[in-house]
Amino acid sequence: MRRGARAAAPCGAGIGSEDSGRKVTAPPRWIAGVDIGGTNLRVGLVPFEGGRPVEIGRERTCAERGPAHVVTRVAAMLRDACREVRPGSVAGIGVGAPGPLDRGSGVVLETPNLGWRNVPLRDLVREAAGLPVVLDNDANCAAYGEWWQGAGRGADRLIGLTLGTGIGGGIVIDGEIYGGASGGAGEVGHMSVDFAGRLCACGARGCVEAYASGPGIAARAVEGLADGADSVLAAIADRENGRITARRVCEAAAAGDRYASRVLAEAAGILAVAVANLINLLNPDVIVIAGGVTSAGEHLFEPLDREVRRRAFRSAMAACRIVPAELRGAAGVIGAAGVFKHGVYGHV
Amino acid sequence: MRRGARAAAPCGAGIGSEDSGRKVTAPPRWIAGVDIGGTNLRVGLVPFEGGRPVEIGRERTCAERGPAHVVTRVAAMLRDACREVRPGSVAGIGVGAPGPLDRGSGVVLETPNLGWRNVPLRDLVREAAGLPVVLDNDANCAAYGEWWQGAGRGADRLIGLTLGTGIGGGIVIDGEIYGGASGGAGEVGHMSVDFAGRLCACGARGCVEAYASGPGIAARAVEGLADGADSVLAAIADRENGRITARRVCEAAAAGDRYASRVLAEAAGILAVAVANLINLLNPDVIVIAGGVTSAGEHLFEPLDREVRRRAFRSAMAACRIVPAELRGAAGVIGAAGVFKHGVYGHV
Repeated sequence: MRRGARAAAPCGAGIGSEDSGRKVTAPPRWIAGVDIGGTNLRVGLVPFEGGRPVEIGRERTCAERGPAHVVTRVAAMLRDACREVRPGSVAGIGVGAPGPLDRGSGVVLETPNLGWRNVPLRDLVREAAGLPVVLDNDANCAAYGEWWQGAGRGADRLIGLTLGTGIGGGIVIDGEIYGGASGGAGEVGHMSVDFAGRLCACGARGCVEAYASGPGIAARAVEGLADGADSVLAAIADRENGRITARRVCEAAAAGDRYASRVLAEAAGILAVAVANLINLLNPDVIVIAGGVTSAGEHLFEPLDREVRRRAFRSAMAACRIVPAELRGAAGVIGAAGVFKHGVYGHV
Repeated sequence: MRRGARAAAPCGAGIGSEDSGRKVTAPPRWIAGVDIGGTNLRVGLVPFEGGRPVEIGRERTCAERGPAHVVTRVAAMLRDACREVRPGSVAGIGVGAPGPLDRGSGVVLETPNLGWRNVPLRDLVREAAGLPVVLDNDANCAAYGEWWQGAGRGADRLIGLTLGTGIGGGIVIDGEIYGGASGGAGEVGHMSVDFAGRLCACGARGCVEAYASGPGIAARAVEGLADGADSVLAAIADRENGRITARRVCEAAAAGDRYASRVLAEAAGILAVAVANLINLLNPDVIVIAGGVTSAGEHLFEPLDREVRRRAFRSAMAACRIVPAELRGAAGVIGAAGVFKHGVYGHV
């Protein structure tokens, strides 16, 4: 790197900018997708016409070091990703971040997962990277990614669920994210299916997130171990100071542990109530389920499917596929790029 | 009436038909709305440009006498309604009927409320009345009526709930009924809010309909009386062989009966769970609540509002009005006419 100024040059040198004295006028070839998660930061370049991203970078988010620090690192990762492509060929940047956020003004309002409040993330990224930016909720981006390039490609009505620390949701209708009156739609995780049930972190009772998120599943596993359940998870809990993760439960179930399998089936059964409610209410073509817990495969999907069938209306059920996500870690990056393209060009 | 053939002439003599030797070419002035309910049949003429219907006719449905009988009477009611307006000035007929039904083919698939199966209702009405017909679900029509002319006029995102024998729901997004993949969307009544709770008529457990419909409220009132609750309802139940209706509960609450008031508050609290779920999921601008139970006024809306506020996300809640319906018995007729206009002209 010869000059500091050069090193800090914006990614792709902006749209239609000059490079080596030649005006760049070729059509955009790429869109950058940025997925800012509570744990990881992912950046990639997605082909403008769709397809798998190239050069996905992944780092720890380190949100506790503040938005400016994270944005600086996002800009550096974008520069790394852009180094492989023709200057000026990147149309812009889609950014997905945990909400609630204001899509219109591009401000992250409040994120328990990042610990940020009222951060003008869209403008910060735009200034650091020198490219136009569109910001949306991470769960919306993941759903949009699966709609654009993944398991729900082109479906007229798609609902995406991500089972993670919480349960995120995104609704895509006729190729657009359904945002609702104030951009807050899609909070499937906070659908109560048990009005007097478990207290959720949001303050309400019986939210499906309290049962079928990673921590919800882990909590249920620990409860049963405390009651003396016979399981390989008991030895793991002993070793890790009583801590169990949903991943451990999935691994144990895959290895044939019947208690772990039962814990997953219980979680799937409660998730099914929310899924059946979604089917009765929105009659979607496809529900795409993403997140670490889907690694449990049939231990999750088989009881889920069975219970949804018991609860949802037959005709609506017949019209709906319930499928695991295809894009895995890349859904957020691809979806954020898609959200940018739709936001700026009106289509993907 | 001089000739039998004349007496059976189609309503308004059809579009662009000849009457008294003069070709009718004036723009349509009216749309007929037909609301076929389990109990009542309502017919009215709605001004093409919107406004309250004229000449609403109302009769018992007598669905048990079969579709042909009902359709013949609908055609007669239409002729009565049309007698007051210029021949040829009625554009067509919107029909709302209990579902599930297939909007595309105009066939009522299965209606527990009417006891009909696979009835080509749209074509039957068209043949009997000699005018084009559009058929939709009654709950969708009621929601659309409130969106077009009622309490949710022009809202970008409206959800209509009708608390009656069941709980019907309709979703209107950007001026269109959201029908979903197979036309079955909007089944709010079968949202489970208590996965191990009361058995619903649909076979699932904990549907909000099992708690907050008319029969749900009545059942709860009877349960408490059996446990010795002190209430004027006890004397009513004694007089009527143990039967209580939701109307009686509403009347008793209005008259100051504390037990009746508590029963309504409990129902409202459970309805609130479903309403909060709708707000978190769909972030609507307005939720319009219709049906006989809304006569309870503050006895219903005050506890409803309080519990929704406890459960829904603040920003989504702030964007949403929860209001009683305005059109009462006319919502179905007005909405059916609106659905016809939208279906044929692409707008209302």
